[in-house]
This record gives sequence, structure tokens and C-alpha cells, in this order.
Amino acid sequence: MAIATVYHIPVCPFSQRLEILLALKGRRAEVDFQVVDITRSRADWLLQKSRGTTALPILEIAGGRILKESLVILQYLEDVFPQPAVAQRDPWRRAVEGMLTRMEGPFTTQGYTFVMNQDPARREALRADMLQHYARLNDFLLEHAGAGPFLFEQFGWAETVFTPLFMRFWFLDYYEAFELPGEERYARVRAWREACLAHPGAQQVSKEQIVKLYYDYAKGAGNGALLPGRARSSFVFEPHWRERPWPPRDKYRHSATDRELGL
Amino acid sequence: MAIATVYHIPVCPFSQRLEILLALKGRRAEVDFQVVDITRSRADWLLQKSRGTTALPILEIAGGRILKESLVILQYLEDVFPQPAVAQRDPWRRAVEGMLTRMEGPFTTQGYTFVMNQDPARREALRADMLQHYARLNDFLLEHAGAGPFLFEQFGWAETVFTPLFMRFWFLDYYEAFELPGEERYARVRAWREACLAHPGAQQVSKEQIVKLYYDYAKGAGNGALLPGRARSSFVFEPHWRERPWPPRDKYRHSATDRELGL
Repeated sequence: MAIATVYHIPVCPFSQRLEILLALKGRRAEVDFQVVDITRSRADWLLQKSRGTTALPILEIAGGRILKESLVILQYLEDVFPQPAVAQRDPWRRAVEGMLTRMEGPFTTQGYTFVMNQDPARREALRADMLQHYARLNDFLLEHAGAGPFLFEQFGWAETVFTPLFMRFWFLDYYEAFELPGEERYARVRAWREACLAHPGAQQVSKEQIVKLYYDYAKGAGNGALLPGRARSSFVFEPHWRERPWPPRDKYRHSATDRELGL
Repeated sequence: MAIATVYHIPVCPFSQRLEILLALKGRRAEVDFQVVDITRSRADWLLQKSRGTTALPILEIAGGRILKESLVILQYLEDVFPQPAVAQRDPWRRAVEGMLTRMEGPFTTQGYTFVMNQDPARREALRADMLQHYARLNDFLLEHAGAGPFLFEQFGWAETVFTPLFMRFWFLDYYEAFELPGEERYARVRAWREACLAHPGAQQVSKEQIVKLYYDYAKGAGNGALLPGRARSSFVFEPHWRERPWPPRDKYRHSATDRELGL
């Protein structure tokens, strides 16, 4: 019996956080996930629930009360399902994971800016900026984390927050040939990222799914917007992404048609 | 006996948060506040503590361990001094104050962008954007707050977060003649702001102090940077702000000299 409903966009990283947290707590069945098709205009009943805002996910609990913001919802779920704890309980440890969590916003913005870039002249600078973010995470882990691979003993709050982004950034591997260099200055964050990606509680999406669905982001169109010359968004539900071919990697010199994308 | 040291910039709103929280808990004496002069280059010993970053406040606890980010430090202080609670303990109420707290970042950015603007042609748009932020806060309070004036029964977490900004935005009153119109759509946020400004736990700064120290911000120079033709920043410690005249209000057509500012 579900105690709450999440309205979310398919493969949204901010919604995957909630799924991971619930998986870690063995509570996935207690929250109902309703998928919203962002390739269509937002339904009135949903706009009414959100009082006009369009950002997702939102969480609805008994009495029609609505929570917004994935980190707020995450904390709410942590509080109503306290066992097993995913967030740290000790004040110092909690503050450490809080500091790491606050690095996620700029990291996310950087990754999305990079994938959406359409100017080949900016690629190198964006790549360097992305590496800076990884270097900062590396330094943070060196300062605060144990031997590893996670921040504390187990996959916890910070991992729940970052893992969906590490997974989305598969689009940088594919469309920007971006990879973390095998240098010492990224060694700690590389180990962290790999352990996050491999964790059994975080397998809600796959690289193939991300690469196929985010093709339009790689061409500069976010949130289900339609690209010129295209009739369908890469975020449509049908045909299923498994039935579509892998998109062309070259985002700068080629614009794939609906047909090429299997849409 | 202090259990921790805060290194902070005078009249920094993010540091005032910590002072307010400690005042509400009757624990102000247990944290030592060390003022950092931002008009001079940052001392090496402090850069070592912060591992190279310059954002303040930072909190140092036993063993030289450092916390950064005002909201992280605020939560740490809430956790180590749990009584009386300033943050809500009920999951739903905590989430509600979490949502309101997340509105602070864009609100702050808007206010600082407005005060630092030097282009008279942008004034009206910036004023309209600022009003939008107040309207959003108003709507939030109408949805979630009780009869008032605070979000919950007492001045709490959200008030601790926002009050220092309401106080900094006295610089908008003075340099931009900005005021909240006496319209119904701002009535709830106006009542909230007034109650926040008047609270006895939040009187660490005064309007005169803010207006005098932030003169350089109104001329576009942040963080103790020096304006052209000036030898001293409005953030210098001497002469004391009480001994200086009120700065000229007209930031767009006049640039005050050190002498006019009593520096």
C-alpha cells in the first residue's frame, strides 16, 4: 500500500535519487511512481497539484499535500522511513555529507551545460571545467573520506545524491568522448564513481537508455523540446528505447532525423 | 568556553545566520567569532585552514576540523545544541521549511544583482524581478504558513535563514528606493519580513551599518574590491561606520570619494 505518489519524468536523475533511497531502505513499494510525459503539454490536474510550477519530481502525500525539490523529498523519506539510516546521524558526519551534497548543484550544471553545448570552439574549455569539478570532488574525498570506496563505510546519502548524475553523464562519454584521465589527481573520485555506478541499489537506468533518451539534450534541446526538422522528441515513450538504434555520436556535424533515431 | 571558532566577514549575512541560531539557543558564548578583514589579502594560515577556498564563514572545531557552507554549519550547530530546537522535528514540517529555505538562494542572488547593477536601463526589470521573488514567497506562505507572522508558531529555521537577507536588502531601500508595494499580493510576505526584522534574536546589525558598509556593492564592487579612484573600501574597520556620514543615495550618477564617505 503506497503512502505517497511521486510524479516524475522518465530517467530524471532527481527522481532516481528517490528510487535509490527507497531501494536502500527496502521501501520501494510504498511509494507509487507516476510517469509524466514531458513531450506533451503539462496536464491541468498536475499543474493544479504543483500550483503552476513545472519542475519535477513532486511528492504527494495523504490529503493532497505536495512536496517539491528532490533533496527535500529525499530528507522527508529519510525521516518517515528512518531504518535503515541512509543519512548519517552523527553531527560531524552529517555535516561532511552535507558539504559534499552542496557540491552537486554546480557539478550537475556543468555536465548539462557541456552536453548541451553546440559550439565546437567551446568544447575544450567545457571539458577542462568538467575536470575541475572532478578534481574538487577528488580533493574533498581525500580530505574527508576513508579508504573507500564510499564517503563513509557504505553507499549512503552523498552517493544517493551523486550516482544519478554520474549515470546521466554517460551522455558525456558518448557524445563528447569525455573520460576521466587515468591520473592520480582523479584516482579517488574515479574509485568513488565506479563504486557508485556498480551499486545494486542504483540500477534503475542503463547507459543505453540514457544515451538514447538524451540525444536531444546533446543537440541542445532540453525538457522534451522539439529540435528543428524533427517531429518527435527522443524522450517519447514509444517506440521503446530498446527498439531504437544507438544515435550517431557526432553531435557537432550531424543532426539525426526521427527515422535515424528510430522514432 | 568556546567549542568552535567561526571565521567570518563583518556584516556577512551567512555568518549572521549562525549568530541568530546561537542567540535563539542561548549558546552565543560557546562559539568564538573571529572577524576577517576582506579589504586585505587573505592570510596564509586561514587559506590553509580552508584548503585554498576563500568563501566565509567557515567553522573550526576541535582537532582543526573545518566545516564550510553556512547552511551546513547551521545544521551542525542545530545538531550539537539540540535544545531548544530551532529546526522543525516533524518530517512534514521540516520538509516545508526545507522548501522555503531552498528559495533563499535565488532570492539572495536577485537582491545582490540588483544592488550591484550599474546600468540605469536595467533598473525597472531588476525591480520587477525582485518583486517576483517576494510574490513567490508570499504564495508559499499563503500555502504553508499559519495565521502568522512566522512560517510556524515561532521564529525558526526559515526565519534564521532569511532574516539576514531581509536586513542586507536595506541596501535596496536606500540605493534603489525599492520598497514592497502596499498590495495584497505582498501582504503575507510583508508581515513575515517585518516580524523577522523585529525579532530580538536577530539584532546583530543595523540599517545604518548595512547602508554604510555596502556602499561599494551599490557601486558594483563586491567582497572588499577597490573602486576606481578610491584608496579605501567601505568595508574597512577604521574609521568605525558610526563615525562616517551616510553615503549619497544616488549610485547611478555620482561616485563618492573616500573623503565623502568618511574613509
